[in-house]
Amino acid sequence: MNWKEVCQYNPKLNLEDCYIYDTTLRDGEQTPGVCFSMEQKLDIAKKLDELGVKQIEAGFPAVSKSEIENVKKIANEGLNAEILALSRALQGDIDKALSCDVDGIITFIAASPLHLKYKLHKSIEEVEEMGMKAVEYAKDHGLFVAFSAEDATRTPIEDLVRIHKNAEEHGADRVHIADTTGCGTPQSIQYICSELSNNLKKAHIGVHCHNDFGLAVINSIYGLLGGAKAASTTVNGIGERAGNAPLEELLLTMNVLYDVKTDLNISIIKELSTMVENYSGIKIPVNKPIVGDKVFYHESGIHVDAVIENPLTYEPFLPERIGQKREIVLGKHSGCSAVESKLKELGLEVPKDRIWDLVKKVKTTREGGEDIDDEMFIKIVDIINKQ
Amino acid sequence: MNWKEVCQYNPKLNLEDCYIYDTTLRDGEQTPGVCFSMEQKLDIAKKLDELGVKQIEAGFPAVSKSEIENVKKIANEGLNAEILALSRALQGDIDKALSCDVDGIITFIAASPLHLKYKLHKSIEEVEEMGMKAVEYAKDHGLFVAFSAEDATRTPIEDLVRIHKNAEEHGADRVHIADTTGCGTPQSIQYICSELSNNLKKAHIGVHCHNDFGLAVINSIYGLLGGAKAASTTVNGIGERAGNAPLEELLLTMNVLYDVKTDLNISIIKELSTMVENYSGIKIPVNKPIVGDKVFYHESGIHVDAVIENPLTYEPFLPERIGQKREIVLGKHSGCSAVESKLKELGLEVPKDRIWDLVKKVKTTREGGEDIDDEMFIKIVDIINKQ
Repeated sequence: MNWKEVCQYNPKLNLEDCYIYDTTLRDGEQTPGVCFSMEQKLDIAKKLDELGVKQIEAGFPAVSKSEIENVKKIANEGLNAEILALSRALQGDIDKALSCDVDGIITFIAASPLHLKYKLHKSIEEVEEMGMKAVEYAKDHGLFVAFSAEDATRTPIEDLVRIHKNAEEHGADRVHIADTTGCGTPQSIQYICSELSNNLKKAHIGVHCHNDFGLAVINSIYGLLGGAKAASTTVNGIGERAGNAPLEELLLTMNVLYDVKTDLNISIIKELSTMVENYSGIKIPVNKPIVGDKVFYHESGIHVDAVIENPLTYEPFLPERIGQKREIVLGKHSGCSAVESKLKELGLEVPKDRIWDLVKKVKTTREGGEDIDDEMFIKIVDIINKQ
Repeated sequence: MNWKEVCQYNPKLNLEDCYIYDTTLRDGEQTPGVCFSMEQKLDIAKKLDELGVKQIEAGFPAVSKSEIENVKKIANEGLNAEILALSRALQGDIDKALSCDVDGIITFIAASPLHLKYKLHKSIEEVEEMGMKAVEYAKDHGLFVAFSAEDATRTPIEDLVRIHKNAEEHGADRVHIADTTGCGTPQSIQYICSELSNNLKKAHIGVHCHNDFGLAVINSIYGLLGGAKAASTTVNGIGERAGNAPLEELLLTMNVLYDVKTDLNISIIKELSTMVENYSGIKIPVNKPIVGDKVFYHESGIHVDAVIENPLTYEPFLPERIGQKREIVLGKHSGCSAVESKLKELGLEVPKDRIWDLVKKVKTTREGGEDIDDEMFIKIVDIINKQ
């Protein structure tokens, strides 16, 4: 039985022509404390390309000379993905991006009352003018241009619509809704994207969601439902504060739950996740959705019984699809099936009428504070067989 | 400026009379490898009570003798929260729960075609009969009874509605939608809850969401929007596989984004999270939404400049509200403000015209692979002052 037969109530949505622009190498690297080497950036870019994402935001050239070298190296690697760089709405930043040979830029300037007052000390008219100059300058130099009004979810909708229409008229290929502090909800992001969608002629809409409340993935999906075509991700969801929309969660949610066909090579998801975990130093928890080491582990008796018969009873999809693996572990909640399965795995035996005693001994040993690894299990079997 | 003035598009929803039943001590403990001691269970129960959750699911008495002692101890502790226990739809399990002096039980039996065929080897009629007997038996013994059709999100809606109406007629005080494998979406959970809500007279609906795709919090919220009154949580989202809806994310999402008044004592959220992290051994990542150690850390120049003027520019709410704290860290993305702020903090000085040299040295040092802690920063300042 396949998930499509059992998840009856999930709406089938037209998200087929949506695409990912991944920003692991830019917003992901902005995680406090993270700094990738050039070799690491290149490895991640190649792996994202192997996965098949459409666009890779490779870095923020204005940060440093070494960042310019990193981005240029990736742009000249001959990857299938288009390579983008981040630029403030300043000619100097765009010149630096141009020196990196990128295919395009994402240029941004804040438009929310909060950012205008406390960060930029400028009027909305001034920032709009700066933004349009940046778009025009980049288009004049042949770049793909995405324009982003930072902190969009806390910006009046009439300002957002006007500025983004203006950006389209100045040649922007895409406009971004940046949920800079993660305070958007599915309803609000869908609303903003719909309003923009009704007002733009051909520029794509992109959503760039932050995960301060854990809503970045679902906010991205509701943005796409509202008319956006592109969603921003980072591997493992790394990024400023609680990070960005995790690539792996967005892809599997779209594919498994919303039945979106994808030609992305999702079998390398776990491998990509582990690479970014190691390079960033940001450890992912064992229970992280999709990619955590133990999200296909089962202990409790009720679950193990069923999973041995058919894994889909307690798994939403098979772990092999993304390079993950299943394991049965023993502990306080174990039942007979798990214990029998472990006996078989280790080539051990106890008399049939002692199985329940063995289960009880496993539980009390765990409750006594011991981990039930194979070594401990062998000891327990030995005790039962000698009684 | 307060978040309410800036998050304009988030709908205000009528969720005021909704409540939490927390299952950290039951489904949370079912995380493979986790086993709380009695003292730890009691500490967590007391802290949940201090937070102010309405119901605490304290354990699954059928698991072991020691589990019965744990649940009984919590039930007799005189907490304000109601204490519940889990029972299969079996008289023996309910008797064990009764022996623990709990206020009520959650009794469950699977109803999905997948679970009927591969786990229970029973017909839907047989499991319905078992479920109703369990509800009746527990009600006859004076318990609060929540009835849960396991794997509800993969169960035909007509079966769900019939069984839960039947449970209400047999006296169930609440019925649960268990999204057992986390394959629900906001749309599907809202749909199921609305259908149930239209068919029940007075029994509350509860939602019990798993986090396999990272959607447990938003699915819970859409369940509440669909008419549910109770949502199940665990601290830090621990639980089977990728876990359950994280209590801290659900509370802050409801409170900050959906403007739900709450009299819960959210200032102890970080403390509660750390307690469960230590007792469970399930480490939370530094970037976990709400409770991660570094979700209020800022490094990049653009962010730090603004946060120093007004933290709400790059924070969705102030960390002090939940016992968290802000920190400015230095690295590759640092700008002048962060460096000046660190100089001031450490009582150091460099000439005004050398600040930018200092920033560049911080960046290149970090890019060279060194962490910029205070000790390293002092060294760098020394180098700049000697040049």
